[in-house]
Amino acid sequence: MSDSIHHVVIVGAGFGGLEVAHRLAGAPVRITIIDQRNYHLFQPLLYQVATASLAASEIAWPIRHLLRERKEITTLLAVVTDIDSADKRVLFEDGGAVSYDTLVLATGAQPAYFGHDEWKPYVGGLKTVEDAITIRRRVLLSFERAERETDDERRAALLTFIIVGGGSTGVELAGTIAELAHENLPKDFRHIDTQKARIILIEAGPRILPDFTKDLAAYAQAALERLGVEIELGRPVRDCTDNGIVFDGRNVAAKVILWAAGVRASPAADWLGVPADHANRVKAKPDLSAPGHPEIFVIGDTGSVDGWHGKPVPGIAPAAKQQGHHVATTIKLRLRGDSAPRPFRYKHAGSLATIGKRSAIIDFGWIRIRGWLAWWLWGLTHIYFLIDVRSRLAVALSWLWIYASGDRSARLITQDEQRSTLP
Amino acid sequence: MSDSIHHVVIVGAGFGGLEVAHRLAGAPVRITIIDQRNYHLFQPLLYQVATASLAASEIAWPIRHLLRERKEITTLLAVVTDIDSADKRVLFEDGGAVSYDTLVLATGAQPAYFGHDEWKPYVGGLKTVEDAITIRRRVLLSFERAERETDDERRAALLTFIIVGGGSTGVELAGTIAELAHENLPKDFRHIDTQKARIILIEAGPRILPDFTKDLAAYAQAALERLGVEIELGRPVRDCTDNGIVFDGRNVAAKVILWAAGVRASPAADWLGVPADHANRVKAKPDLSAPGHPEIFVIGDTGSVDGWHGKPVPGIAPAAKQQGHHVATTIKLRLRGDSAPRPFRYKHAGSLATIGKRSAIIDFGWIRIRGWLAWWLWGLTHIYFLIDVRSRLAVALSWLWIYASGDRSARLITQDEQRSTLP
Repeated sequence: MSDSIHHVVIVGAGFGGLEVAHRLAGAPVRITIIDQRNYHLFQPLLYQVATASLAASEIAWPIRHLLRERKEITTLLAVVTDIDSADKRVLFEDGGAVSYDTLVLATGAQPAYFGHDEWKPYVGGLKTVEDAITIRRRVLLSFERAERETDDERRAALLTFIIVGGGSTGVELAGTIAELAHENLPKDFRHIDTQKARIILIEAGPRILPDFTKDLAAYAQAALERLGVEIELGRPVRDCTDNGIVFDGRNVAAKVILWAAGVRASPAADWLGVPADHANRVKAKPDLSAPGHPEIFVIGDTGSVDGWHGKPVPGIAPAAKQQGHHVATTIKLRLRGDSAPRPFRYKHAGSLATIGKRSAIIDFGWIRIRGWLAWWLWGLTHIYFLIDVRSRLAVALSWLWIYASGDRSARLITQDEQRSTLP
Repeated sequence: MSDSIHHVVIVGAGFGGLEVAHRLAGAPVRITIIDQRNYHLFQPLLYQVATASLAASEIAWPIRHLLRERKEITTLLAVVTDIDSADKRVLFEDGGAVSYDTLVLATGAQPAYFGHDEWKPYVGGLKTVEDAITIRRRVLLSFERAERETDDERRAALLTFIIVGGGSTGVELAGTIAELAHENLPKDFRHIDTQKARIILIEAGPRILPDFTKDLAAYAQAALERLGVEIELGRPVRDCTDNGIVFDGRNVAAKVILWAAGVRASPAADWLGVPADHANRVKAKPDLSAPGHPEIFVIGDTGSVDGWHGKPVPGIAPAAKQQGHHVATTIKLRLRGDSAPRPFRYKHAGSLATIGKRSAIIDFGWIRIRGWLAWWLWGLTHIYFLIDVRSRLAVALSWLWIYASGDRSARLITQDEQRSTLP
């Protein structure tokens, strides 16, 4: 394809980046999409990989396969380390580079530990497939070690699971681990009673699920407590170590600590030399471009733009997709000569969170639903948004199996370096 | 349960070990089954995990979950490092130990490199889930790197895949990688023609598939060649490096070398201080006990016993299961006071191998089948032997999808340490 055609480079094939590519179909552009992984990940269900309910391949698809029919798109597996915005080039870790006319940065976020990077070895964040499989290994290994432990205190620590952060991810992790311990595992062990495992959800704020109404959050809290989750509110974590956490002046002994408390955006602001907010997101202009760079857009977790009850647009999949759509439309209009700034307007479709496999809360704004009906709606919605028919069938099969048999099928302890015969 | 009950300790929950446990149901024994992994793996389909056709959780099941209804069985996740046969104790890596009355060693085998352990970093053996995912990563990464490579010679090396060993595993890997490269991937790439990828199967012996008749092996060879596999016979590999292999006086440049040429049994013979054969298998007595240790049985890849046309019983799943059955019967008879030695008699049910997704060869002895009918028989047989209904449904779904769409669903590059945010 000729180099004179307008070249759109998209960094990051998450919900936002992929939406830009989809919405540019038929536009007079060539596109390069770059990601450091070879797959698009359906992040909202990643906690189910971490809790042994789904296989990673059920919620992830090779990017280049998704885009195979779009001959004007080139997919590259590469790690971006900087942007040369003067020369309009994206620079790669391996020394390579690619030039752009328009650049879309949709590079996402990583777990952030309130500035305590020293906690990282002890707490499991949940952003990548590897993270999810590592969490799965740690949780399952803790039960295995408890089964062989003869010291009461050490056994109790092995059977204590701490989840830091009371947003949707924390609630979903806590509910699923509680079901795993209290419902799925008891018959499998001989020396421990997995029903006595403690699942503790810690939230520094005054309540869980701050993005939901107080009523729905209270309902979710009661549902979690029925599953046996202990909820600790209003006191932040002071320290995380190999032996547990310090919190509220106490040390709580635990061998598994999961982190769902905060994220930090990729270093896009540093690459561009533009201001960032507290979570390192580029302070975007109303049209989602980066300040001083009208040809560079920052979407999803990469940028911060106001537009939700006076707060920044939330870092969720539907918001990233709306932004991707908006940017693609802007690019197409500009190519037709219409360069008037078009402010992005966010439409909040709703908030959803599940509590285990029987209950959920949904806030559509105009209607609020909770309980089993919400769970089925949540499930159908998520299956609908999965990318292909095979994944829909596979996830539906896995869920129906869990629902009917109580058996979580992906209970494998893998990715242990010592157990591989290969380097 | 009282310690006075006869205690059977089984090391290894593969096909042989698990069969002993199943066949001892109802016997007046208590059982401890020990494995260094938490899952039973359906090894015959592991090559499909390595070639992006199946997810690991579709062919692996938590051991303790499989045995959850058997209250007399304790499952332990532990690494065995030695046997104290004088004191009748199994010793663990972590300092623990367990005493036995009867011991069954079903500890399997690992890839062996003809005494060239220095080749190990460059060649991928296929024995564990981690091995399979590592092979998958290497194969898929090689295509990704080729897409970005500008040097013709280096690109050719990235698109050359060498499989060493012409037995069933080598044939199945070669056929599936050829289909992946020549049929599934071409539309996904822009700069490379994956149809030009070279898949080279190297066998030191005079023909592939020595366990099959000459006719069937010749049919398989022709079917592989139709898929675009190059077959090199009669010349052993002389060296393996980061840049490829030396073979027949030539250097063949390749970045991915897969090893299906030989295995070496676990160190059970060392633990017991008894003679081993060339593959480190304990030379078992006709009743499958270890020489000088009537209370210790060695089955599957751990032991070697004659019984197949004057050759040792082959290291395949049905043989291990028959041996497990035999040992369980022997244990039950002994507990009833019948200690007469009972020689094991192997019944060879048949040999099967697939060539890609359309052809297979089956030798039942009394009838030989080849082509698409053999493939369907092979598929149905393997689905039948999977352990639970969910796996049967999931594998059937994955295969039908591959058959109908040509899309292999598990094409994820994962388990890359650098890409995890966790240690």
